[in-house]
Amino acid sequence: MSGSRTDAYVSADLYARLQQFYARQMGLMDYGRPEEWAATFTEDGVFEEPHRLEPLHGRDAIRLSARERVDRLAAEKLDFRHWLAMLDVRPQDDGSLRTRTYALAMRTPRGGALDIFAHVVCHDHLVEADGSWAVRHRHIEHDGVAGEGR
Amino acid sequence: MSGSRTDAYVSADLYARLQQFYARQMGLMDYGRPEEWAATFTEDGVFEEPHRLEPLHGRDAIRLSARERVDRLAAEKLDFRHWLAMLDVRPQDDGSLRTRTYALAMRTPRGGALDIFAHVVCHDHLVEADGSWAVRHRHIEHDGVAGEGR
Amino acid sequence: MSGSRTDAYVSADLYARLQQFYARQMGLMDYGRPEEWAATFTEDGVFEEPHRLEPLHGRDAIRLSARERVDRLAAEKLDFRHWLAMLDVRPQDDGSLRTRTYALAMRTPRGGALDIFAHVVCHDHLVEADGSWAVRHRHIEHDGVAGEGR
Repeated sequence: MSGSRTDAYVSADLYARLQQFYARQMGLMDYGRPEEWAATFTEDGVFEEPHRLEPLHGRDAIRLSARERVDRLAAEKLDFRHWLAMLDVRPQDDGSLRTRTYALAMRTPRGGALDIFAHVVCHDHLVEADGSWAVRHRHIEHDGVAGEGR
Repeated sequence: MSGSRTDAYVSADLYARLQQFYARQMGLMDYGRPEEWAATFTEDGVFEEPHRLEPLHGRDAIRLSARERVDRLAAEKLDFRHWLAMLDVRPQDDGSLRTRTYALAMRTPRGGALDIFAHVVCHDHLVEADGSWAVRHRHIEHDGVAGEGR
Repeated sequence: MSGSRTDAYVSADLYARLQQFYARQMGLMDYGRPEEWAATFTEDGVFEEPHRLEPLHGRDAIRLSARERVDRLAAEKLDFRHWLAMLDVRPQDDGSLRTRTYALAMRTPRGGALDIFAHVVCHDHLVEADGSWAVRHRHIEHDGVAGEGR
């Protein structure tokens, strides 16, 4: 996502809605509700995180992967948190949105210390759905990985 | 705080006001002004952080505890920062608000290195007061602690 | 920047525009575009970060310093991120704005681990420019440094 710095800002209304969308979406994963999290993707949604897994095609694949992850974290007794910030939004001509957010991944083992272990950048393509948005495409780039779209 | 993902988002106006409320409230503690910080609680406000201290009942108890903490940090020459993010807001039928925010606690000793040492989740019950909000009840859950409302 | 806690909040419109301004401005540095980053300062802009460098006077000096920094990070193969949060805004009588933001500086070496190495506070004086803002004065205070305006 490039786009010059003179690009217009989106409205406060849209910006605040997207901040709430992301706070809730990430909360669903962090609170062990992967099915609801997967429901924030479109039926044909794609999730790409090259550094960590094979691309996931379709909401069903996304749901299964998320369920496995949540179960693994629960088995390991890890509290996991996704922090998103520095949201930038670029409306597209067809009414969809392209967003870029910075994200920190952190975990705390039961009785252990906080570990903020990765910074990634989340590039989303969002389409409207039921008065909110759904993710049609998510691409996660990991900092520190050569060739990750910098 | 549960509430399904289809719950409506709050207005940009409310969301931005709450973001400002939290930025200022946390800044008061970080900048060593515990009396003003305590004034953001209601007279009968309750502060609960089970992992760290006994529940505090009433603004006076909250103020005393905050003053002690600020003095201790000053004596230890520690710069302390509270970061809040991922704000989610659920309006209640009586006009009050329930909020959930993620929070990172971090400190830097004089001449030393930054230490981001805990992730917690802040659950607030807010009521309107003088055109802003006051905290009637705050519950802080620490990640990594068994039984902390996950 | 003091100002009592009863100071009015700024509008959602202004707050969301500033959040977007900062997300994009910091992104310009992080994505290796120091010339565009420097263009977000006024012609006579001043950048002060006492703990790290001599004050920079004027956009040209700011641009040169930023270019050197970006080149150095590229040579070192470091992915660098600036996170800003906890934005507080105080409108001034002349229409300009004074802002305070918390900021985390973090880097990830190629193939290495995330290192969140400093917390700073960014104090900006912003003036309107072309429908957005330009930084006339930026002062960065580092946590853990004696005498840094706490």
